Amino acid sequence: MNVIEAIYSRRAVKHFDAKHRMSEEEERKLFEAVIQAPTSFNIQHWRFLVLRDPELRAKIRTELGNDQSQMTDASLLVLFTADVKAWQKEPQRYWKNAPQEVSDLLVGWMGPFHEGREWLQRDEAQRSIGMAMQTMMLAAQELGYQSCPMIGFDIEKVAELVKLPEDQVMGPMVAIGKGTKDPWPKPGQLPLSEVVFENSFA
Amino acid sequence: MNVIEAIYSRRAVKHFDAKHRMSEEEERKLFEAVIQAPTSFNIQHWRFLVLRDPELRAKIRTELGNDQSQMTDASLLVLFTADVKAWQKEPQRYWKNAPQEVSDLLVGWMGPFHEGREWLQRDEAQRSIGMAMQTMMLAAQELGYQSCPMIGFDIEKVAELVKLPEDQVMGPMVAIGKGTKDPWPKPGQLPLSEVVFENSFA
Repeated sequence: MNVIEAIYSRRAVKHFDAKHRMSEEEERKLFEAVIQAPTSFNIQHWRFLVLRDPELRAKIRTELGNDQSQMTDASLLVLFTADVKAWQKEPQRYWKNAPQEVSDLLVGWMGPFHEGREWLQRDEAQRSIGMAMQTMMLAAQELGYQSCPMIGFDIEKVAELVKLPEDQVMGPMVAIGKGTKDPWPKPGQLPLSEVVFENSFA
Repeated sequence: MNVIEAIYSRRAVKHFDAKHRMSEEEERKLFEAVIQAPTSFNIQHWRFLVLRDPELRAKIRTELGNDQSQMTDASLLVLFTADVKAWQKEPQRYWKNAPQEVSDLLVGWMGPFHEGREWLQRDEAQRSIGMAMQTMMLAAQELGYQSCPMIGFDIEKVAELVKLPEDQVMGPMVAIGKGTKDPWPKPGQLPLSEVVFENSFA
């Protein structure tokens, strides 16, 4: 499947075949693709939590997830999170295969770029989560799967339930599976003229 | 080009052919693809600013952009922003083609979901920016272009320069063009075991 086809055919699918099992190889392919998504300074601060346990999924669905069936029926359910302090945690490892002077330069910039700018650390984390989510959803299209990004759950309580580490921020879940119903037509696409501007906003 | 190829071949390219011109049709194809990226509640809160004027680009590069040549040499330079208050601005239009009961339901949820949760409004905006960025960069691969996501500029001063509206937040720029140098090998990919977890982080 080519890229443009995947972009247009990806839709938020709400109904998945609960009996379908994704192979280990397919799951591995998906994650290997996801970690090709870019991060600033190659910081790779995303952390992916596979919600595998059926009881855990059922609990999230019924108690914290507005009874969304994708949470139990998807073949793969992944919670996207990111470590906003990854820049402080042995940053040399993100550049270990680069020439020493390149590594020194980039690692040297990471500190001042993030230091004291909590808003930027969080913005960066959420953007990286977004890039990784779309990478996973488009790769899924190619593997013959459908997907659904989901933020409609009790974010704080799910964080507690999965023991989110202190430095990590929560993102959405992505459900991947075999869709059983066609999605609705797009509900109200804004024209390009309302979202694309040139040189200045005013 | 298939999706997996595009995901693996996309790299942050630092040197572009300054003489190459992108056609209007190619640019349109890119933006039409970008707005297929998902947003929660179909809110479509991204706003894209095409930095077209060569003088503006030169000013950003030399005064606010650490002299990064992509800022002047890319065939297309886009600043990604998003409106964190889009949920308050005629939200019916995001669902205008849906059946009335679906539209009422979704539009009715948007208010309580966002109300009083400034952190979530901003997280959502930045994630949508991330999904749109990766969509543009992967679509560019298919059209025979390379790209570079860029956050290494004076964010506050660029916001001022382009007259960022009050409700909008800044994201990165994406440069698209014809690369003239192969990128470095990946500098230090973390293994899946360091970023993928199961059921619980602890």
